[in-house]
Amino acid sequence: PQTKLPKVGTTIFTVMSQLAIEHGAVNLGQGFPDFDVPGRLSDALARAMRDGRNQYSPMTGIPALREAIAAKTERCYGYRPDADLEVTVTSGASEAILDAVHAVVRPGDEVIVLDPCYDCYEPAIELAGGVAVHVPLDPQTFAPDWQAIRAAVTPRTRMLMINTPHNPSGAMFDEADIRALIELLQGTDIYLLSDEVYEHIVFDGRQHESALRYPELRERAFVISSFGKTYHCTGWKVGYCIAPPALSVEFRKVHQYNTFCTFTPAQFAFAEMIEAEPEHYERLGAFYEAKRDRFREQLLTTRLKPLPVPGGYFQLVDYSDVSDLDDAAFCRWLTIEKGVVAIPLSPFYGTPPVGQRLARLCFAKNEATLDAAVERLRML
Amino acid sequence: PQTKLPKVGTTIFTVMSQLAIEHGAVNLGQGFPDFDVPGRLSDALARAMRDGRNQYSPMTGIPALREAIAAKTERCYGYRPDADLEVTVTSGASEAILDAVHAVVRPGDEVIVLDPCYDCYEPAIELAGGVAVHVPLDPQTFAPDWQAIRAAVTPRTRMLMINTPHNPSGAMFDEADIRALIELLQGTDIYLLSDEVYEHIVFDGRQHESALRYPELRERAFVISSFGKTYHCTGWKVGYCIAPPALSVEFRKVHQYNTFCTFTPAQFAFAEMIEAEPEHYERLGAFYEAKRDRFREQLLTTRLKPLPVPGGYFQLVDYSDVSDLDDAAFCRWLTIEKGVVAIPLSPFYGTPPVGQRLARLCFAKNEATLDAAVERLRML
Ligand SMILES: CSCCC(=O)C(=O)O
Ligand SMILES: CSCCC(=O)C(=O)O
Repeated sequence: PQTKLPKVGTTIFTVMSQLAIEHGAVNLGQGFPDFDVPGRLSDALARAMRDGRNQYSPMTGIPALREAIAAKTERCYGYRPDADLEVTVTSGASEAILDAVHAVVRPGDEVIVLDPCYDCYEPAIELAGGVAVHVPLDPQTFAPDWQAIRAAVTPRTRMLMINTPHNPSGAMFDEADIRALIELLQGTDIYLLSDEVYEHIVFDGRQHESALRYPELRERAFVISSFGKTYHCTGWKVGYCIAPPALSVEFRKVHQYNTFCTFTPAQFAFAEMIEAEPEHYERLGAFYEAKRDRFREQLLTTRLKPLPVPGGYFQLVDYSDVSDLDDAAFCRWLTIEKGVVAIPLSPFYGTPPVGQRLARLCFAKNEATLDAAVERLRML
Repeated sequence: PQTKLPKVGTTIFTVMSQLAIEHGAVNLGQGFPDFDVPGRLSDALARAMRDGRNQYSPMTGIPALREAIAAKTERCYGYRPDADLEVTVTSGASEAILDAVHAVVRPGDEVIVLDPCYDCYEPAIELAGGVAVHVPLDPQTFAPDWQAIRAAVTPRTRMLMINTPHNPSGAMFDEADIRALIELLQGTDIYLLSDEVYEHIVFDGRQHESALRYPELRERAFVISSFGKTYHCTGWKVGYCIAPPALSVEFRKVHQYNTFCTFTPAQFAFAEMIEAEPEHYERLGAFYEAKRDRFREQLLTTRLKPLPVPGGYFQLVDYSDVSDLDDAAFCRWLTIEKGVVAIPLSPFYGTPPVGQRLARLCFAKNEATLDAAVERLRML
């Protein structure tokens, strides 16, 4: 058939996870933990099932979960969204991204994305008939270049998509970025989509600059997060979108005709877990910071050069001392010949930068997994 | 904001379920059972969680579930789809419908829908930039009018959407319909979307005419089903799409950037359940037939006139002896004043037929629920 998404193949995460299985490689590719969900959470889910919470939930999500999200948002960012009018539960952050884009992007509209960016952004824009306008982040620090972003704005610009902490680099917006962002958007009617799924995985005492902290941003923003990264359950696919009432109305029109609602027992489980154990997400930064520190130290004993990781659970490494292959070829070689899966950065770009020699390793893993990987990486 | 889906409000199911709660009405509106999932299924889900099956599944679904779906399809319809190339697990049938439409419908394409039809069809078409072309079913029997459908075909027709057993009427395609459908599609490149979520709820010895039985249909079809209706878990949102390899490639491009994958522990649970207990879905028709028969008999003691119900779990009633209100007004009145929620048919139409006096009652309920409803309906 004539194809609607001609540029799209199977995602790099699927490709590399399959390669990992074929070659028995240690999988530091696709971003998921190899340790388990908190017991309280799975217990609560099993209980909700037993209590018969197995039918459709309200399409916006169960009230208890929307209230829990609102309360948690207030604790974290000093702003309490209206649980009824501003919070919508979705089947993961990626559904929420597709819904938000479809809610406002019309055929021919332009959406600015900052490269490298997560690989679902551009297909969502294309399916809505929009055009992704790629603006590169700094190739070393992955900081936004606000002048370049401003230069990309046209009368057709409908939305700007940001992601902090950033996948794949771990870079985070700082206060100066927020000021520049506010200034850029002021007086325009550009919507903001802020992908904040790594919101609780931030290191070295940094503050996560959620768009929700800033009235000038949240008034025009779809702020999207998910529980997969926070509760070690990437396969549960429960996310949410916080947006002002008028935007939430539009968002929900799409959501209700997409998945309609999300696995009901998990909603009860998260509602309970968030309220009962706020320490879980409060301590998540420290939990992953210890993993990052240990893994970085180990990497310094290899010929890979680790880049700084302000947040998230990915470690970029510069492999230029090891190989002159491009990143896709290097990651295949590393998987097949050396038994460690890494993710190349080029699939995160509209046009990959020439000569970039970076690969992404996921450190959301047990020490044994990371040790096994490092042992192999020492052979490079 | 300028709105992308100007015709869309909150779905009638949500509106009526909210009204049910406000007025303490017996809810025979939104289609969901008030009895619970099989114990084996929730046990299997809890076990999968405890076994650590909590991370991303393959975006196509776990192999065991795709194989179980393929084997079950062969048992039921004599055709075994290729589990790797033709079966994709989705977060409910409605996600699958949106994905299938987005996979092939281009801006300006026409999609024929048969009215009344489920309310997510047209928004999915509109979000893809397509145009829904509404062809009415027979207002008494809800049989397709093949001449009218043929007359609606144009060079822009990209897809035809069918639904058997049919929501809201329960009507089913018979062999003559299938012959007419094959003839209609022959020599065209029109895709077929066949929504078969009520496939196992068929009565009086009828055969469900799945598009998968017929090579001339399945070669061009997205056949969509879901476990919600079959396993009494409408809130679990696990569905699937069976389509030929080339169509599945396009379908998966959309799916992988929409929800990516579906709640992993439920996939393990369904894989086990389908294989271990085929009697469950084999006996589902008899289970619901008994409910239908009992409910119809009770309705004959009221002033509502029940229409025939060949399949599905909805009973249409003609209320013209009771009220001259239009169906939306009647259903509100019935809920608020008489304490029974019914769903009007008009939201299932592009242009509702004038003077139709039908309402939909869901009989996927315990006897006590149906008895309570009938007691109130006797007062009409
Ligand atoms: C949905 S698979 C990709 C998981 C992920 O977020 C990543 O590896 O970047
Ligand atoms: C997704 S809510 C609607 C449930 C349903 O299938 C119906 O009532 O027709």
